[in-house]
Formats: sequence, structure tokens, C-alpha cells
Amino acid sequence: MTHPLGYVETQRAVLFAEGDPLRLRSGAELHDVEVAYETYGELSPTGDNAIFVCHALTGDAHAAGLRMGEKRRGWWDNMIGRGKPIDTDRFFVISANLLGGCSGTTGPQSNDPATGRAYGPDFPLLHMSDVVAVHRRLVASLGVQRLYAAVGGSLGGMQVLQWVCDAPEQIERAVVIAASSQLSTENIAFSTVARQAIMGDPDYREGRYREHGVRPDQGMKVARMMAHITYVSPEALATKFGRRRTTVGEQMEMAPDFEVEHYLQHQGDAFLGRFDALSYLALSRLLDYFDPFADAATAEALARTSTRFQVTSFDSDWRFSTAQSQRMVEQLRAHGVAVDFAELSSPHGHDSFLLESPGYHDRVRSFVG
Amino acid sequence: MTHPLGYVETQRAVLFAEGDPLRLRSGAELHDVEVAYETYGELSPTGDNAIFVCHALTGDAHAAGLRMGEKRRGWWDNMIGRGKPIDTDRFFVISANLLGGCSGTTGPQSNDPATGRAYGPDFPLLHMSDVVAVHRRLVASLGVQRLYAAVGGSLGGMQVLQWVCDAPEQIERAVVIAASSQLSTENIAFSTVARQAIMGDPDYREGRYREHGVRPDQGMKVARMMAHITYVSPEALATKFGRRRTTVGEQMEMAPDFEVEHYLQHQGDAFLGRFDALSYLALSRLLDYFDPFADAATAEALARTSTRFQVTSFDSDWRFSTAQSQRMVEQLRAHGVAVDFAELSSPHGHDSFLLESPGYHDRVRSFVG
Repeated sequence: MTHPLGYVETQRAVLFAEGDPLRLRSGAELHDVEVAYETYGELSPTGDNAIFVCHALTGDAHAAGLRMGEKRRGWWDNMIGRGKPIDTDRFFVISANLLGGCSGTTGPQSNDPATGRAYGPDFPLLHMSDVVAVHRRLVASLGVQRLYAAVGGSLGGMQVLQWVCDAPEQIERAVVIAASSQLSTENIAFSTVARQAIMGDPDYREGRYREHGVRPDQGMKVARMMAHITYVSPEALATKFGRRRTTVGEQMEMAPDFEVEHYLQHQGDAFLGRFDALSYLALSRLLDYFDPFADAATAEALARTSTRFQVTSFDSDWRFSTAQSQRMVEQLRAHGVAVDFAELSSPHGHDSFLLESPGYHDRVRSFVG
Repeated sequence: MTHPLGYVETQRAVLFAEGDPLRLRSGAELHDVEVAYETYGELSPTGDNAIFVCHALTGDAHAAGLRMGEKRRGWWDNMIGRGKPIDTDRFFVISANLLGGCSGTTGPQSNDPATGRAYGPDFPLLHMSDVVAVHRRLVASLGVQRLYAAVGGSLGGMQVLQWVCDAPEQIERAVVIAASSQLSTENIAFSTVARQAIMGDPDYREGRYREHGVRPDQGMKVARMMAHITYVSPEALATKFGRRRTTVGEQMEMAPDFEVEHYLQHQGDAFLGRFDALSYLALSRLLDYFDPFADAATAEALARTSTRFQVTSFDSDWRFSTAQSQRMVEQLRAHGVAVDFAELSSPHGHDSFLLESPGYHDRVRSFVG
């Protein structure tokens, strides 16, 4: 059986040649930036039907469909495809791995063309605008001047917001889901514990673990297990696992026994090897500093934008709560931007943006419509 | 200036002689169990004015006053003392370190009299009833048959509840603050991440770190930093630290920069050396399994008790939430137990039980009164 999208393929672009480098907000420069991306559907002759999909912290370019030889569909396959809310029969969908990542786009483990060796811990710190700059260049290289829509959840939604702040003329519709315009103190607190777990792992070796043939797996596992708790709601954990355990009665053991412990162990182990520690650090730090409304240029940009926003939060999301979405909405409206906001009900916490909660897909469909 | 309590002193009892061992709920036995305790005030001639104070996970026997040569008052000095809610002019207050701890009472780093070496990871897993059994014996050794009150917050509150279930005739008033009768799935999830951080630390050495002259400091630091987030409310973190940082404008760094990061680093570092990893594991595991209402004996015990309960929760406590206290109250009332319950308003999260929130001390005072 053929998948409605046909098999999809991850492609590769090299942007920002040596004489035309990517100038980061920090002042550092990168050239020969690779970008891994996928496209679904066909670009219209006038180029007016392109939708850019922005992934979350540990996502990648493979948002939809099936790649040859693989069994697992893209991470947003329920949202993107023929007849789906982001309908590939109508739209030309672009999904790209982000700068600093580890799934095909230039990041800390990529080779620095200047040295021929991996950047490692010398990879520059990134601003969300740098991520946007790479994707803007990619979009231009694909012949798209203006996006029909940019869509993203979590970090992806924050990228969408930054994109509008940086190039308001380029996005007609901005769909921001389960995101924030500024991390809360508690968000930063969890981030810093994750970084302590990773950077304090003796196998981190000051970020040069790959040169030493090791990996800070223990730190990454702890970081992922902890992060996972923040991705789901306490109610969802209780419903799914309760206090079920393997031992009975008054038996006890120190090793994992309750089902939720086995589940988190599995989440932690499955992360290892799939994601690079330096990318995790780079992207978590980028999120901590993300604060587009603190930037004087934002007010000016938003004053002249005609971009329409749809902002959506989920009531059980305690990582990027409804209050955080509401603040973003107020900030946008204060700059005269049109925003359609709703809090949806879903028991699944932050992860809701990847699932099909009642009303969620219809809401995206009608706005993108 | 002399402290109203005078200098206090930590004392030491040895209980459960070899021929009369402590039989744990697991079937294991311990003998020559040491207990570190302090007392404040005077026992009345009839022995009817004793109040037992139960400490939380990382607490100790030093609840009030000043020990000679030290600058830091006991952890509940605002609650216990002359004229304070637990008034040492009227009551004989006993505070003891708990079994499995590392502050003077027998725990994993104590010498096993059978081998002359520390128990280490061979220390038996503990049930909350085992903790209670040691303190019951201590109380008896001090000439107290029946407690005027038992008072505790967090794990201490859970110990109070267990004590009533195990020896309902022994406690006249039970004061349970910021506690739970059963950990939630999310509570267990955070516990298991902490254990992964500690037991996965290469310096854990399967629990024999002391023999190797090392300590799993990295794991303990991560565990403590994460736990600390759950002890405070997101609102308190935001009020206290906001997004203040050392760098300015678009400067960024990977090392701790935001004030909340420095704060958590400090919390983590201050914990090292102060608390033993095996004790932390033992007590966190004891909490996971704590479930007194699943015990058939509890119904029988509560049916014949005349103990009156005061249960208090704080609205911003998300570690042991009001919903958890309410469930405990319903369970107690279903067994015919008299309970005075209130949720108090405090912005400080779980830590509120250690602070002086409006109405809190008066509430305890009037119940103990």
C-alpha cells in the first residue's frame, strides 16, 4: 500500500557560501550551512501556497509521511497530509531541521569548514533569529517569497513568532501552538537542572566527548526523564499509570517497580543516541534567552505587519501554560496584531500539540483554510 | 544574650538490644538502633504534655533553638519555643532524626553490629511503620505513654498519619501539614528521576561509594536542584528571581547566568556533604510505597481511635497539593475520624510549612492549644 503522500525524502541544501556568510546575532559567522528539509505537495505556479512547519526542541525535518525503508511516520503526520488540516493536496509544505540541531542541519557536531573538525563546544550560542535566518534563506532558495502560513508548536511556535518579528512581510498566517513569548522562571529552572545533569556528567568532557569516544548518556537520560514529566500533565500520568507496580502487597524494591518508573526509563533510554548533547544544550539555552518583545525592533516590525495570528494553548499544559499564551496574545494585540486565541481542553499536557485533541485539528484547519 | 530555650543539645539513645531487635515490616531485623533526638521544655509530672515533632525528608533532630557553637537555629524554630505555637513553656517537645537518615539515627552509613562495617546498600528497605516503631520506643524510653500531640510537615506529616494507624491510642492530636496519604504518579516520577541521577552517577559504585572514598555528588546535586523546584511554587520563583541575569541585552552564555540558575546551583552545592545518598534513596523510596489506607489494619485501628486530626494544605503547594490533603481527609472521615481541615493561602509552595504564612501558626496554636 502506498502512503497517500508517496514516500518522502529528506533533502539537503547548502546555504551561505563562504563569501556570503550567515551573520549570527552574537556577531559570529557561519558559512556553508547545511539544512536538512522535506517538502510535501506542490508549489503553485505563483508560489502562494507554501506553509512552513517549525519543529520542537528535539524534532527534525521528517514531519510527515514515510521515508523509504522506515516504519515510523513523521512526527506531525496526523496534521500534515492529503485531506489533513495542513492539506498537501492544496499546500506546498516545507519542514526543515533547525540550526544547532543534530538531524541534518548544521549544529555543534557538524564540521567547521575553517578547521575541518567538528565545532563541538565552540559552536556559537544561537539566538532564535539565527534559526529563522537559515530557514528564510532556505525558503527563498525554494522560490518562495511569502509564506501562506508558518506553523509550529512549542519551540516551533516560538520560531514562528520570531519569524514574524524579523520579517513581518513574509508570513500571511502565523499558527503558534503551546508556546510562550518568554520562558518563565520555572521553565529556566528546569532547563538549568537539565544542563547541570549533562554538563556535570564526567563523560561530557567539557563538550569534547566525541573526541574522547564517549557520550554523556547518564546526563542526557536524566535530562530527558525530567523533561518528559514536564511534557505531560499530572492527570495524564495518573490515568495512564496510577500506582501500578510489579511487586505486590508490602514488597518493595529500590530498582524501578512502579509502571511510571519503567515508562520514564524507557523514555530516557530511547533518547540516547537519537539526540546530541551539545545540540540539546544549544537549543535549551536559546529558549531561555528567547524574548522577542524585549527587542526594540519588534514593535516597529509588528506595527507594519498584516500577519494574522492563531494562538492555541491547552488547559493541562504546565510547561507552556495558557497564561503564557495569553501574555503573548496581549503583547501582540498591544502592537495592533490580529490574534485568534483559544485555550483547548486536553488531558495530555504539553504533548497535546502533537496529538488529536477535540477541536484542535479543526481549529488549525479552519484558520489555515 | 541567652536564647529563650537556652542552648539545646542533641542526645543519643540506643534502643532495641540484641535480644530484642527491631523487626521491620520487610522481615529484616535491626538491633542496637541509635536515635539522635532533642527535647525542649519539661515533661509534666503526669507525663501528659509531650509533643513529638516529625521532620521532613532531609531534616534532622535539631528542630529548635541553638546548639552550642552553632549559628543556625533549628529548622522549625519559628514554630517551637517559648510562647510559640508549640510552646515550650507548656509542652515537652521531642524531635528525633528518623530511621534510615544520616543525622545521628541508624541509617545506611551506620555500622552493622553484625559485621562491624557500614550497612551501605545492604541496609534494608524501610516502611513508614519502621520509622514510627523506632520513635515509639524512644518516646517510651523517655517515660511518655501517650502523646499530647504529634506534629509533622511533608514526610513528617505522613509519619504522624502512620503513627496513628499503628498506635491510635498513643496520640491525642495529630497535626498533618502539607502531606499526602499516597504519593501521586507525578510524585513518584520525580522520585525516580532523582534516583536515576544518583544511582547512575559513576561515583555511586553500586552504593559502595564510601568504601571507594568517593561520593555521587553530581547525582545528588541534580536530584536536589530538581527537588527544589518542586518545593517552591512557579509564582514564588517568578517573584523572587524573574528573568534577572548577569549578562545584558543580547549577550548570552552557557554557564549559569539567570539568578534562578545561581540559586539552584547554590541549593545543590549546599546539599553535598550535608546529606548521604543512600539515606536519600532509602527515604525517597519509603515515600513512594507509603500507602497506609491500603493496609487492612488501618481501618481497624482508626475505628477505635479517639485521635483528632488537624490537616492543613497550602494553595500553591504542587508537590503535596490540596487535592492530596483532601483525599486524606476523606479517607480519615470515612473511618469516623474527626478532622479539622483547611487550605491556607501562601505563595511559597510546599516550603510554606516551614515559613510563617498568614493564619498558619495561629491555626496550629489553636489546635494544639
